[in-house]
Amino acid sequence: MIELSLVGMGTGNPDHITRQGVAALNAADLILLPHKGADKADLADLRSSLCAQLITNATTRVVGFDMPVRDSADPDYQAGVNRWHDAIAQVWLAHIQAHLPQGGRLALLVWGDPSLYDSTLRIADRLALQLPLRVSVVPGITALQALTAAHAIALNEINAPVTITTGRRLRDHGWPADTSTVAVMLDGQCAFQHLPTEGTHIWWGAYLGMPNQICISGPLGDVRNRILEQRQAARAAHGWIMDTYLLRKSHPQQIRDPNGS
Amino acid sequence: MIELSLVGMGTGNPDHITRQGVAALNAADLILLPHKGADKADLADLRSSLCAQLITNATTRVVGFDMPVRDSADPDYQAGVNRWHDAIAQVWLAHIQAHLPQGGRLALLVWGDPSLYDSTLRIADRLALQLPLRVSVVPGITALQALTAAHAIALNEINAPVTITTGRRLRDHGWPADTSTVAVMLDGQCAFQHLPTEGTHIWWGAYLGMPNQICISGPLGDVRNRILEQRQAARAAHGWIMDTYLLRKSHPQQIRDPNGS
Ligand SMILES: C[S@@+](CC[C@H](N)C(=O)[O-])C[C@H]1O[C@@H](n2cnc3c(N)ncnc32)[C@H](O)[C@@H]1O
Ligand SMILES: C[S@@+](CC[C@H](N)C(=O)[O-])C[C@H]1O[C@@H](n2cnc3c(N)ncnc32)[C@H](O)[C@@H]1O
Repeated sequence: MIELSLVGMGTGNPDHITRQGVAALNAADLILLPHKGADKADLADLRSSLCAQLITNATTRVVGFDMPVRDSADPDYQAGVNRWHDAIAQVWLAHIQAHLPQGGRLALLVWGDPSLYDSTLRIADRLALQLPLRVSVVPGITALQALTAAHAIALNEINAPVTITTGRRLRDHGWPADTSTVAVMLDGQCAFQHLPTEGTHIWWGAYLGMPNQICISGPLGDVRNRILEQRQAARAAHGWIMDTYLLRKSHPQQIRDPNGS
Repeated sequence: MIELSLVGMGTGNPDHITRQGVAALNAADLILLPHKGADKADLADLRSSLCAQLITNATTRVVGFDMPVRDSADPDYQAGVNRWHDAIAQVWLAHIQAHLPQGGRLALLVWGDPSLYDSTLRIADRLALQLPLRVSVVPGITALQALTAAHAIALNEINAPVTITTGRRLRDHGWPADTSTVAVMLDGQCAFQHLPTEGTHIWWGAYLGMPNQICISGPLGDVRNRILEQRQAARAAHGWIMDTYLLRKSHPQQIRDPNGS
């Protein structure tokens, strides 16, 4: 039996991890860490420095593995993703067979929270087809929480709903019905630039929780171009960017933004 | 100048708190803890045992305060809430004047994450009208993350949106448009019992993160009555309940629920 613990690590601040997360890492016999592509080497470094800093159990082994690469040329996107997830499950399995032949406790660090736009749970389902597996999840701070914390704002208006969606859906389907607040993730194309700006406020953040965190907020029409410019410059400087934002349509008096932009 | 740190404490598991949260508590000169009504004394106890366990800085003072009571008989609900928030800001102000007359660092523990259905940021806005204030937020694990972790499920389907809403809105407005996943909080009335059950799955959790955590999941039509019964029994036994749930309308093959109900 393998006990697999998926540990939410937060979104770049090593102190986002919870005490439960630290305990789960130290309870593990084996921790598998992906070596990422060179462009995101700083993120792989974050994982290993987190382990170096937090693991006090001398019997916990930390082992790196080469992350299979998704075939982005595959014309069938979904089939390509499925094959990629299969390949990752196979790599995990090989390491389990090598390092935990009698079973034991395996932990994986998951960016943010394992529940939010993350495929680790789905990959674990594949692994469960190949060996006896018990999965547990340790929640972590999401990028959305890092965003609202950085801006010191509430996610929702009082008793009102919030829709979390992707950049692609916002671009293809427009503003979701029945909500005045939309949180957007996974947006490489800045879908906000195609929205009507009238009466809409944006709170944007990149590299949240990290030393190079950038936050911009204001009426969408006023700050839209500034976000586009800063995003492009930051991305060029770092080689990669992760960003997310909250949009709200509302009457001006309902907007609170104590820290300004 | 008062530096106010709002520290997300998670939802009942003392180990939900992040390393950033522990650091913020220990950086504070003063921590104000509400004495809650007798019915929720265990929640007030959780806050003070968290402080007792985590605070190692001998100069950090922990001071209890009596939480003003909202006048629930007020026929104007919103005005009643506003007056209540004013009263809380006044109590904070009195304690700041008594304990931090020269300014300093104040920390407050906030249930879950301060961004989600919580009024602490709004009360801080009121305080900011009365003294120079800088607010910072330390994110915490929300009840929704505790829910998805307990069930070991993803919040969203692949690339699909999620709407977070309240029990009252679900009851009054029905299933929100443009989404197949709905997360429901603040539902004292079990709004799920009025929904069509066809093709809908529910993942429900109460006292999440606590020793008495209860989780039930399954097709809504199959488990609805079991949830209603267990909820009523647990509430009677404990004197209070906090619960939340995720609903998903989807094709059966898209549902994953490795741990069963
Ligand atoms: C694959 S999703 C993973 C989300 C993660 N599981 C979480 O809980 O936040 C990646 C998306 O999260 C957002 N994101 C993650 N980390 C971020 C950060 N540090 N700053 C800004 N956005 C971030 C971006 O929108 C990015 O496209
Ligand atoms: C006023 S809101 C506060 C939410 C909190 N700020 C958070 O981040 O989770 C209270 C609602 O959160 C949910 N909740 C909070 N703690 C919970 C727990 N331990 N178990 C189940 N639901 C919880 C319930 O739906 C409850 O009605």
